[in-house]
Amino acid sequence: MKNEIEKYFDLLWPITRSLTGNGNRKTLKILSEIVDMEIHEVPSGTACLDWTVPPEWNINEAWIKDENGIKIVDFAINNLHILGYSIPIHTTLSLNDLKEHLYTLTDYPDVIPYLTSYYKERWGFCISHNQLLNLKEGNYEVNINSVLDYNGSLTYGEAVLQGELDKEILISTYICHPSLANNELSGPLVSAFIYRELEKIKDRKFTYRFLFLPETIGAIVYLSKFGQRLKEKLVAGYVITCVGDRGDFTYKRSRTGNSISDRAAELILKQTEITYLIKDFFPGGSDERQYCSPGFNLPVGSLMRTMYGFYKEYHTSADNKDFISFEALQNSVFKYLEIFKLIELNGHYLNKFPYGEPQLGKRGLYPSLGSQKKKELFIDALMWFLNYSDGKHDLIEIIDKSGIDYHEFYSVISRCVESGLIDKI
Amino acid sequence: MKNEIEKYFDLLWPITRSLTGNGNRKTLKILSEIVDMEIHEVPSGTACLDWTVPPEWNINEAWIKDENGIKIVDFAINNLHILGYSIPIHTTLSLNDLKEHLYTLTDYPDVIPYLTSYYKERWGFCISHNQLLNLKEGNYEVNINSVLDYNGSLTYGEAVLQGELDKEILISTYICHPSLANNELSGPLVSAFIYRELEKIKDRKFTYRFLFLPETIGAIVYLSKFGQRLKEKLVAGYVITCVGDRGDFTYKRSRTGNSISDRAAELILKQTEITYLIKDFFPGGSDERQYCSPGFNLPVGSLMRTMYGFYKEYHTSADNKDFISFEALQNSVFKYLEIFKLIELNGHYLNKFPYGEPQLGKRGLYPSLGSQKKKELFIDALMWFLNYSDGKHDLIEIIDKSGIDYHEFYSVISRCVESGLIDKI
Amino acid sequence: MKNEIEKYFDLLWPITRSLTGNGNRKTLKILSEIVDMEIHEVPSGTACLDWTVPPEWNINEAWIKDENGIKIVDFAINNLHILGYSIPIHTTLSLNDLKEHLYTLTDYPDVIPYLTSYYKERWGFCISHNQLLNLKEGNYEVNINSVLDYNGSLTYGEAVLQGELDKEILISTYICHPSLANNELSGPLVSAFIYRELEKIKDRKFTYRFLFLPETIGAIVYLSKFGQRLKEKLVAGYVITCVGDRGDFTYKRSRTGNSISDRAAELILKQTEITYLIKDFFPGGSDERQYCSPGFNLPVGSLMRTMYGFYKEYHTSADNKDFISFEALQNSVFKYLEIFKLIELNGHYLNKFPYGEPQLGKRGLYPSLGSQKKKELFIDALMWFLNYSDGKHDLIEIIDKSGIDYHEFYSVISRCVESGLIDKI
Repeated sequence: MKNEIEKYFDLLWPITRSLTGNGNRKTLKILSEIVDMEIHEVPSGTACLDWTVPPEWNINEAWIKDENGIKIVDFAINNLHILGYSIPIHTTLSLNDLKEHLYTLTDYPDVIPYLTSYYKERWGFCISHNQLLNLKEGNYEVNINSVLDYNGSLTYGEAVLQGELDKEILISTYICHPSLANNELSGPLVSAFIYRELEKIKDRKFTYRFLFLPETIGAIVYLSKFGQRLKEKLVAGYVITCVGDRGDFTYKRSRTGNSISDRAAELILKQTEITYLIKDFFPGGSDERQYCSPGFNLPVGSLMRTMYGFYKEYHTSADNKDFISFEALQNSVFKYLEIFKLIELNGHYLNKFPYGEPQLGKRGLYPSLGSQKKKELFIDALMWFLNYSDGKHDLIEIIDKSGIDYHEFYSVISRCVESGLIDKI
Repeated sequence: MKNEIEKYFDLLWPITRSLTGNGNRKTLKILSEIVDMEIHEVPSGTACLDWTVPPEWNINEAWIKDENGIKIVDFAINNLHILGYSIPIHTTLSLNDLKEHLYTLTDYPDVIPYLTSYYKERWGFCISHNQLLNLKEGNYEVNINSVLDYNGSLTYGEAVLQGELDKEILISTYICHPSLANNELSGPLVSAFIYRELEKIKDRKFTYRFLFLPETIGAIVYLSKFGQRLKEKLVAGYVITCVGDRGDFTYKRSRTGNSISDRAAELILKQTEITYLIKDFFPGGSDERQYCSPGFNLPVGSLMRTMYGFYKEYHTSADNKDFISFEALQNSVFKYLEIFKLIELNGHYLNKFPYGEPQLGKRGLYPSLGSQKKKELFIDALMWFLNYSDGKHDLIEIIDKSGIDYHEFYSVISRCVESGLIDKI
Repeated sequence: MKNEIEKYFDLLWPITRSLTGNGNRKTLKILSEIVDMEIHEVPSGTACLDWTVPPEWNINEAWIKDENGIKIVDFAINNLHILGYSIPIHTTLSLNDLKEHLYTLTDYPDVIPYLTSYYKERWGFCISHNQLLNLKEGNYEVNINSVLDYNGSLTYGEAVLQGELDKEILISTYICHPSLANNELSGPLVSAFIYRELEKIKDRKFTYRFLFLPETIGAIVYLSKFGQRLKEKLVAGYVITCVGDRGDFTYKRSRTGNSISDRAAELILKQTEITYLIKDFFPGGSDERQYCSPGFNLPVGSLMRTMYGFYKEYHTSADNKDFISFEALQNSVFKYLEIFKLIELNGHYLNKFPYGEPQLGKRGLYPSLGSQKKKELFIDALMWFLNYSDGKHDLIEIIDKSGIDYHEFYSVISRCVESGLIDKI
């Protein structure tokens, strides 16, 4: 899988994405090779909750030339050079005047920062601080060939894998970042490959909904249309972002702090990872801010690797292909799949023989040689499962209480079903 | 007391006990010298919950002779040599064929393991692994003179010390182990001596019920008959097992985790022991598995010393008289008695002067010399007791909150009753 | 402020205070220069809850002379020398007989202890243990010129700063200690200066009630009259005592353990102090014993510095002006004011845009330059406040969850009110 992820990474990397625009359309088209998605267009100016869809932005060209006509900054070389949503300009100005439109990072002087100005009309360039320090006095020609189209639209993709039930699991990721790797091509890539794997499973209990949106405004748009339906249908959900670096996993809880999303993700991490980080919900970050706004309060968490803002390459040109690992991306896919499997199997089971232990021996579920000093893990898991399948404890609780590997319980469940020992409620 | 415990240990030690049989009857008869118990017989084949009472097993003789007619393994020397519930056999076979019927412990090569085959017809011998390694090629004569009687019965003992109330405290222990010391002659011995001490107390509030049962099937039999009554009457209960070794106390909680059994045992351990272990309920172990099955969910915990499975001598010939201490057995009796006393006194008391402090000085309960730098512990305990005797906190909660020695509260209660400061609800 | 506190300390220090008497009246008169209080007299013999107001005690003179007529102990030199509430006596007795009336501290031999005998008629002197050891054989003349007046009264002061609401915050302190500094002139002084500062605030939401009482019996008297009203009106309350030493703050929780008093005091300590101590409620100590008796169970805690009984100078002549710091007293005033401000602002706010985030940018509350690596603390606090202002979390909870400095939230609240983003419930 990881080679294919890399192939799609290379295809998607050069595209200039933003809140809106042709780069986003192109991105969704490429992802459509993996994900059978519908692509939606929402007109600029559409009111959504407290917000309005911004004009569509596209850019063809952007550069700064020095007095010798040499391009010293060129969007064609790195699309981070342009301040996102820059308005068009073609002018010549002095270094001092130019500096008001140059953005750098003093703390991290050799990288280009990633910056935007979506809701205030501005133009600007992002360059490394070292380059800024080396700029000579003189006049500079600036050219930004961009279009802000008030009759344009915002583009997002949606895909659904129907399950046995209408109850849904949401996978939401964002497609508005230009050439950045961990934050964010990792999210759309991992989401797409999760789709491909889930599609292969024929007896999915839940319906899986995938959203490929521009961050914030995309989630706002979606919630303004379908937020109430999500409130009714959603069992669990995750915002997938920052899943490509080499760091440990970080799980950010949903706002309720004990949703199925949280409990499943945390159990899987606890049993499969040596070191990982759990963070309580906080109302910053990515689109979980919108899903977990108090009016919706959806069970949406986020399983990441190193969290946004917690690595120095974040939102700079150093968040590039070198920074990520395709092994890590692939493992992120598998980790999510493990979580989904646990959510599918979770629920309240009912031991049909709750008075005393059922006699397991006569059902071939207990060793006929008694008083042995060591018991198999299977027997332990079986006894936990039977004792606590009382209609009050769900599978996740039982596994967690037992401390036994969750895989053991998967065979316990099927053996118990075969033997007629349990019902599923 | 400890010399008497030893006397009874020596009487009980040589007897071959099992799920059923004459060894169990003999054991109960000896214990009847201390405990005024009724002995019940339940016919083999009786259905009980999901189980059936097995045939009665008795054994007279069992040995293996080598080619020279020398007994190399003899049940008469150690009753652990016989696989429990072995069917009768008299034959001669080669070493290779014999080996299929020999059970050893490779990890612990110099001891005889304790093993049974209650529910599958088998025969076998348990020997040390070292002995196995030294067996020479050749033919061996095997003789097991045992009887599996489908018209037999299962035997258990029950004793009741009636209290002022019908509400009960259960003491359950098991009598199905042959010559093993900590697990299990310690449980029946400690239970019997608890009985003897409780019998001397004339104003017992609760009724104490003692069960001397074969493990698992005995508890299943009892619960199938009287489980519903226990559900109605039981205030607290303990499975007494592994209480004779020199280790620290271990308390295994009942399934609810905060029953009176749990709270009383834990408070006594907290205040009287420096090191001890608390274990949450887990659905393995001894008869608490049955009492705490989800349908009954009784408040039954277990105060042990080193827990079953947690010492290497467990279920081997090394669990013998040397392994236990009669001092430890005696202290186990006293520890249980302390717990029962606390449960008897526990309850919700009501401070009749809840508005402001009652004036303790005029009742002789407060020093007349004011502003002293040090206060007596009695006064502290008294103030905790009065302030929290609001009908919401029971005695155990109050003692635990206060951190003051529970003995102090026993005099506080009697002084408060004398002074008319409190009512018991 | 600290110089003024010192001025009043010097005025109040020499006065002989007790449960009753002219010293208490004089103390309240001096405090009336700062606090506009009503002074109440409650006749001796008045029944109050389980108690009776004791006779009024006044003392003019008390000394012991040796055989040479030299005053070796003189109340005029240190009013701790007299056992509080000593009955009058004029006699001559041997050293041995005298010793029965002398109180010392063997553990702390160079200080005079502070002792009383309010409810048992006694006479006695308190002296240093070293002085006791040096007393020579011989006869001693003893003179105590005191009056126990059964037609006297108990005196207390009460002041009210009316707020917008009738809901009240209680400040209770005690005035019954003679020349002792931390315990207790610090409490009345800090209470009085809190009054003076709160009086300046024009838009107080809550009504502040100040009580200057003799300890225990004063609170009992007050509760017997107004306890039911306090139960209805009290939002929060504190017993102010031991607030003048140089130690860290100690907060003793109210009996409920999570009252607004507790939550506000603990949040302020957590955010403003490096080291401090939180103590769960215990039913000893000062007048919180009465306010938190189970019948009243008022939300009254106590923010102290080093707690009564936890410093060796406690209740001795070493608890004097050297032991306290006027800087510390002033800081205690400010700490209480911070707590009151937080309680005034606390409450449940309601985000009027609970679906998705409100668009902060268009209200000038969010930076127009997006994707910046660092966010201002104000924005973080704002997002916490909006997300959790759902009617279920009050301000204290939100601040505590966020971990952000509470000051930040004060500007967040006013900016949100201006912008019409929130309502206060």
